Amino acid sequence: MIKAAVVGGTGYTGVELMRILARHPQAELALVTSRGDAGKAVAEVYPNLRGVVDLAFQPPEPELLAQADVIFFATPNGTAMQYAPALLDRGRVVIDLAADFRLKDPQVWEQWYGQPHACPELLASAVYGLPEVNRSQIKKARLIACPGCYPTAVQLGFLPLLHHQLIERQGLVADCKSGVSGAGRQAQVATLMAETGEGFKAYAVPGHRHLPEIRQGLQALAGKPVALTFVPHLAPMIRGIHATLYARLREEADLQALYERHYAREPFVEVLPAGSHPDTVDVRGANRCQIAVHRPGGGDVVVVLAVIDNLVKGAAGQAVQNMNLVFGLPETAGLEMAGLYP
Amino acid sequence: MIKAAVVGGTGYTGVELMRILARHPQAELALVTSRGDAGKAVAEVYPNLRGVVDLAFQPPEPELLAQADVIFFATPNGTAMQYAPALLDRGRVVIDLAADFRLKDPQVWEQWYGQPHACPELLASAVYGLPEVNRSQIKKARLIACPGCYPTAVQLGFLPLLHHQLIERQGLVADCKSGVSGAGRQAQVATLMAETGEGFKAYAVPGHRHLPEIRQGLQALAGKPVALTFVPHLAPMIRGIHATLYARLREEADLQALYERHYAREPFVEVLPAGSHPDTVDVRGANRCQIAVHRPGGGDVVVVLAVIDNLVKGAAGQAVQNMNLVFGLPETAGLEMAGLYP
Amino acid sequence: MIKAAVVGGTGYTGVELMRILARHPQAELALVTSRGDAGKAVAEVYPNLRGVVDLAFQPPEPELLAQADVIFFATPNGTAMQYAPALLDRGRVVIDLAADFRLKDPQVWEQWYGQPHACPELLASAVYGLPEVNRSQIKKARLIACPGCYPTAVQLGFLPLLHHQLIERQGLVADCKSGVSGAGRQAQVATLMAETGEGFKAYAVPGHRHLPEIRQGLQALAGKPVALTFVPHLAPMIRGIHATLYARLREEADLQALYERHYAREPFVEVLPAGSHPDTVDVRGANRCQIAVHRPGGGDVVVVLAVIDNLVKGAAGQAVQNMNLVFGLPETAGLEMAGLYP
Amino acid sequence: MIKAAVVGGTGYTGVELMRILARHPQAELALVTSRGDAGKAVAEVYPNLRGVVDLAFQPPEPELLAQADVIFFATPNGTAMQYAPALLDRGRVVIDLAADFRLKDPQVWEQWYGQPHACPELLASAVYGLPEVNRSQIKKARLIACPGCYPTAVQLGFLPLLHHQLIERQGLVADCKSGVSGAGRQAQVATLMAETGEGFKAYAVPGHRHLPEIRQGLQALAGKPVALTFVPHLAPMIRGIHATLYARLREEADLQALYERHYAREPFVEVLPAGSHPDTVDVRGANRCQIAVHRPGGGDVVVVLAVIDNLVKGAAGQAVQNMNLVFGLPETAGLEMAGLYP
Repeated sequence: MIKAAVVGGTGYTGVELMRILARHPQAELALVTSRGDAGKAVAEVYPNLRGVVDLAFQPPEPELLAQADVIFFATPNGTAMQYAPALLDRGRVVIDLAADFRLKDPQVWEQWYGQPHACPELLASAVYGLPEVNRSQIKKARLIACPGCYPTAVQLGFLPLLHHQLIERQGLVADCKSGVSGAGRQAQVATLMAETGEGFKAYAVPGHRHLPEIRQGLQALAGKPVALTFVPHLAPMIRGIHATLYARLREEADLQALYERHYAREPFVEVLPAGSHPDTVDVRGANRCQIAVHRPGGGDVVVVLAVIDNLVKGAAGQAVQNMNLVFGLPETAGLEMAGLYP
Repeated sequence: MIKAAVVGGTGYTGVELMRILARHPQAELALVTSRGDAGKAVAEVYPNLRGVVDLAFQPPEPELLAQADVIFFATPNGTAMQYAPALLDRGRVVIDLAADFRLKDPQVWEQWYGQPHACPELLASAVYGLPEVNRSQIKKARLIACPGCYPTAVQLGFLPLLHHQLIERQGLVADCKSGVSGAGRQAQVATLMAETGEGFKAYAVPGHRHLPEIRQGLQALAGKPVALTFVPHLAPMIRGIHATLYARLREEADLQALYERHYAREPFVEVLPAGSHPDTVDVRGANRCQIAVHRPGGGDVVVVLAVIDNLVKGAAGQAVQNMNLVFGLPETAGLEMAGLYP
Repeated sequence: MIKAAVVGGTGYTGVELMRILARHPQAELALVTSRGDAGKAVAEVYPNLRGVVDLAFQPPEPELLAQADVIFFATPNGTAMQYAPALLDRGRVVIDLAADFRLKDPQVWEQWYGQPHACPELLASAVYGLPEVNRSQIKKARLIACPGCYPTAVQLGFLPLLHHQLIERQGLVADCKSGVSGAGRQAQVATLMAETGEGFKAYAVPGHRHLPEIRQGLQALAGKPVALTFVPHLAPMIRGIHATLYARLREEADLQALYERHYAREPFVEVLPAGSHPDTVDVRGANRCQIAVHRPGGGDVVVVLAVIDNLVKGAAGQAVQNMNLVFGLPETAGLEMAGLYP
Repeated sequence: MIKAAVVGGTGYTGVELMRILARHPQAELALVTSRGDAGKAVAEVYPNLRGVVDLAFQPPEPELLAQADVIFFATPNGTAMQYAPALLDRGRVVIDLAADFRLKDPQVWEQWYGQPHACPELLASAVYGLPEVNRSQIKKARLIACPGCYPTAVQLGFLPLLHHQLIERQGLVADCKSGVSGAGRQAQVATLMAETGEGFKAYAVPGHRHLPEIRQGLQALAGKPVALTFVPHLAPMIRGIHATLYARLREEADLQALYERHYAREPFVEVLPAGSHPDTVDVRGANRCQIAVHRPGGGDVVVVLAVIDNLVKGAAGQAVQNMNLVFGLPETAGLEMAGLYP
């Protein structure tokens, strides 16, 4: 059994990691930390984990963390980079669910995250943990940067088109909608139920931190610069991301066949039948991305619809998928749950 | 007092019309019809109208309808066109909230609505009831075709840009999100709370009936053909439409100033300060459209955010606004309510 | 026009007061204060009030407040009692929407609210602003204590039964459900949408601050001690309170007729037909209480169902109803809006 | 591997059964039937089961059903009783999730369900499948009547009190709140999102079909008649039941210790620490009942709070728990999932 530690177990990503790891057949949740709740039983803070996780939160001491084989950081941006060098030196595997190691250029990181990077020398060896793109590198990695939730959905949606150079690289649009759990478990007025329960709005249109990450990823897929407009929205639901992607076709292609073929062997990406409209509720709680591809009116505009659960394929589930790859386990171990519908 | 009749008062649009007309200072709700609920008190079917509407539903007899000055049709598509000719002959004003008179070309109507048009000879004189575009024609009209909910939001959003020929007419994108009341008060599995309460999905991507209406409207604004991709989505909320619009700028312009100037004298369109993100909850229950305009990263892509309440500015409120114009009343009469936040 | 001031205009109760007062035919919203947002335009903080309220927030200076005829306190508990003595001395009317003047016994107040009362000498002259019970006293009052949201629903539900001494005064149960706006517009994890959007739970079962208020009110109605169990619950909706009340009949009675008769002349209490189940959505945004009374299986247990909008009849609307009474206006002035369904 | 069939797989209970059985380590989902969707792939109708269930729906032919070891009926009331005799004759195990075999008295059944019972001779041997009460009988049963969702929560909540004769058997109150999935996947206006998404109401107060079932169960627990008032409510959420139970204590007792002791060895009932308020979201998707017990103000009224997921411990999960018991499997097999929070 692989011994896993979760740092920052009191956020939504952390509790979701615990839910998954606690039922993993080849990993053991050995340690969960929290500064604020240290000493409390996990089941006291999260009654959904009663009888599932019998640990108490511990303080995030480096010595404790180093006792695990793999350390997941479900922490705010800027935390994992404080711990990673020492843990890597001691041969541990570090999987960061925050943004610390996602961007290759430390100056871009500093620009968007408002602080200098603590260990820019690690950025080159960090592997961007999107298995559908980087599977072979992930298998050899020690430091994994799990993609953000929006970037996961947008990249999986555009991937076959960019890979086969079927679309114009200019004028891409990613109109994305997220449930409120994406905003985290923080006391703030903006995500109170009374504020968001019956409203819908865009946010961060001038610029969202996931933009440089998506752009970097799409450019890597395309091998060339791309021009993307990314608009995130807050939807009155708890979980789920729906990405609606727009691009212009450069040449004729059977897009349905292309997508089905591209993802035929992927365990966690499902191309729905032609004419489908994926629904976030169908992937709720599951490590899945469901995709449909359309050409409205048979024209040259491609519309791709991609849905994930932001906390699973967009965070905790993908992190465990990465762990499975790093440790040579079956990629689907612990991740075979169906979506919770209705 | 103007005597108003509502035909088809048991749908969401009908009940909203009653709510507004019952408090209108210069109109009297004189008659409400329903085939299914004829004989029942309105307040029995709709307890929110207890003490507000004291009528009972009546059957939709032409003779009864002709006793009103203005007849609102809050009926399924294909109904108003059965009644309109006779009512117009008798000098009545007809305001249709369905699609019967929205499209100028009867063949396009037949293609999208699956039935031949019953009175194509009326299409030329029907006025498309979007006051921000057609105010002077509306004032002289006897037959008003109220715009659809999506078309209202999309046209108000694009209007200043197209009017001033600031954007490319190709490659327009309207990514729209609607609350479930837009699907009407019909027994169907697809809009059960258990189906839609925690999910988000696109629908009708291959082609939605509002597409030809929007296209016709935008082309009238631009004076030339436009190419638009329109993708509607179902959001887990009851009321509200959020339109996110994308276009490419043809030349430099101060968009904020342009929008503020264009809508400065409009009573029901509000341009929010630069950098804003309108929220559907702020216009809930109100006859308002709130708009913000962005240029992400300062590039040449314009993103317009426009919100309305689909049942008010997208239906019943706009219908009353049209009535006010036709009868020479203050345009805002009966329509000054604020949004119900939270 | 009566000049009204709202102190603490940035909470949900405050914004609702502004929405109502701005459309009041005989009152003018002259002043709104906020410590945190002083200097900002109301419409900037609350876009739903654009074009409806043109004021900016001001700091809560006593001199400013004294320029109004009536001062509403939509403030945290313990605030109004700091301002009330001076304002009353200057002949102003004070209407407190918080709890400062609800309890007659200052020691009980101190026990439940954790601080000594600042002006216990005013408690005797403060009138509990439940018009259906205290209308004649309210008309003569200068200091009004508006009832809490739960107490409003519970007292209106039990009132006819206690008034006619038809039920046992022991073993009363009030099982109440509230939308999350009742928790206020405060940054806290417990009322985030992600926490409450799909869950249902009781809270404060060992003892809620509204218990002594309800008990005091019911005892006043009964003229004798009553024993009540009060359990509040948080429901995944924004507005609305549903009180389900249980009592044991002492003698036979036609309860439907009794309720209809008791409330026949009340403008804001509606007794639904026998067999009805009131729905909170039907009173959303309206100053109404809808009630149904049942005897399941024809037995001796009475079940009363009462719904209000916690922010309107449970707070801001009732406060304006009190203002109308104090100033001799029609009781329904500014309060005739229908519920916003759907 | 036990071969399981699900009859009526297109309702919410059916799809939930499939979700659970598909991941059961010792059972195989061999057959799923549907009249309406026969021939369609399960994954087409329920995209959440793509890659999880590879079957197509089949028509409900008795010969097909008889090939399974256990047949689950997730069908409307009155269906299982048509199939059960023949299947039992052939040695199969029948587990009915509807009401056909819950009531011992066929006349009571006919009275509440509006049709004569098709096989009253089987009622005596049918075992009421509430393992926490009837475990040893269930192990020997061939015909299981799974409890209704409300009856499960109410009985588990009252069980320790009635078992130890600690409460008065008169004046019991069960105030219950359910998510809308309890109303099933049927096209009807009453459970549209637009109707229920922001409202809260009671229903069936004059008499709900679960009342005789609860009464029969409580009386079996108490060994004597009980008098219960049961009021169900519809809450604006998808899954979950919250039962708030009221009773009068007959004698002093340490209720917290009593509950903890009573349920100490139950795998699926969790007594929360003193002072807790269970939340339905914590058991969402899980086969768990979480309970807290209170004495508000230290008086003689007991308030029990019990939550379940109506589709899991209130239906499909409990059905699988029964199957495990009948076939001698570990009771928790396939049922160890945690609640999906948030």
